[in-house]
Amino acid sequence: MSLIDDLNWRYATKKMNGETVPEEKVNYILEAARLAPSSSGLQPYRVLVITNKDLLQQLKSAANNQAQLNDGSHLLVWAAWDGYTHNSISEVFEKTTAARGIPASVMDDYKATLWGMYEPLGKEWHATHAAKQAYISFGMAIAAAAEQKVDATPMEGFDNQAFDKVLGLSEKGLRSVVILPLGYRDAGGDWLLNLKKYRTPREEFVIEMR
Amino acid sequence: MSLIDDLNWRYATKKMNGETVPEEKVNYILEAARLAPSSSGLQPYRVLVITNKDLLQQLKSAANNQAQLNDGSHLLVWAAWDGYTHNSISEVFEKTTAARGIPASVMDDYKATLWGMYEPLGKEWHATHAAKQAYISFGMAIAAAAEQKVDATPMEGFDNQAFDKVLGLSEKGLRSVVILPLGYRDAGGDWLLNLKKYRTPREEFVIEMR
Repeated sequence: MSLIDDLNWRYATKKMNGETVPEEKVNYILEAARLAPSSSGLQPYRVLVITNKDLLQQLKSAANNQAQLNDGSHLLVWAAWDGYTHNSISEVFEKTTAARGIPASVMDDYKATLWGMYEPLGKEWHATHAAKQAYISFGMAIAAAAEQKVDATPMEGFDNQAFDKVLGLSEKGLRSVVILPLGYRDAGGDWLLNLKKYRTPREEFVIEMR
Repeated sequence: MSLIDDLNWRYATKKMNGETVPEEKVNYILEAARLAPSSSGLQPYRVLVITNKDLLQQLKSAANNQAQLNDGSHLLVWAAWDGYTHNSISEVFEKTTAARGIPASVMDDYKATLWGMYEPLGKEWHATHAAKQAYISFGMAIAAAAEQKVDATPMEGFDNQAFDKVLGLSEKGLRSVVILPLGYRDAGGDWLLNLKKYRTPREEFVIEMR
């Protein structure tokens, strides 16, 4: 199966059957999320894996009671940094250079340029920028789930502030961005499964400038 | 090769060797971008494929003269809708229902709810929301390129307004968001190729709530 086959196989599962996704598959999906590229390699987001029933019930209430939140066996939540600081950037660059066995100072010029650009843009711009990076990682997890024949429902429709509160994210300098329940489709009960996947036609989607 | 292998193989190529990526591989990458999921299925973005040398030269000037812009053979540009309108949403829903052979009216309630939510959020919120969706598609294209052993450089560091002007995007209701030069790594000339890939360690990246 190719990525295209996987993307055609997947759909935003509306009804899951309650079966548990094996931990090795969840770990594979998380690894794809972790390997995603991000601007300057900062990875300004984390992924929460939630299986705790009480938490899931509270989160479901904060997500219009959408069934996938506890019909799936695992809920993944992408939470992005609520802002960049000189320290948080330095820390990533120090770890990167240490892992590469090169002096931290090789990043000094780049770091000065980056922070010179980011600092005046302010915390809301930072949080939005960090959230955008999280969407790349989210995309990789969606692709990984499809490759592993695990169903998933990419979701934005939840009360972010309520999620942040239930999950204690503010204390961690994080804000919830997008969520992905993982599970298995209820083939008999999902109204969306047998509807044709629609995408913008290629001739409209792609603009050629040759 | 699995997606994880592909993600480990890829890196943000800094120096390309000028070889041309075959059109069937470019089309495969575009198809992955097109199949990406998006909020409410709106796909509020388009992908430009640029091979025109004059345009690439102008774009390079608007991207700090970064070499990949014309060392690669194709430049992909994600451009997101500059806002949602009741019409643009209706149009997608009409095409979706038509493709599925169901009456357009089945989407009426959902559309009213969605527009009731989006309208008061304003055009800047819309543009940011649309841009975030584009990042999922961007992620799928990055994964697809890696699967096809095509090198690519995910890039944000360019002058968006200059890009919009060179590409005539405002007239199309679009704004440039991210770009992806495609080509092949210059194995002898790329300083980044032999540096270890660094990612936030799993124990720090994943937050378990069991």
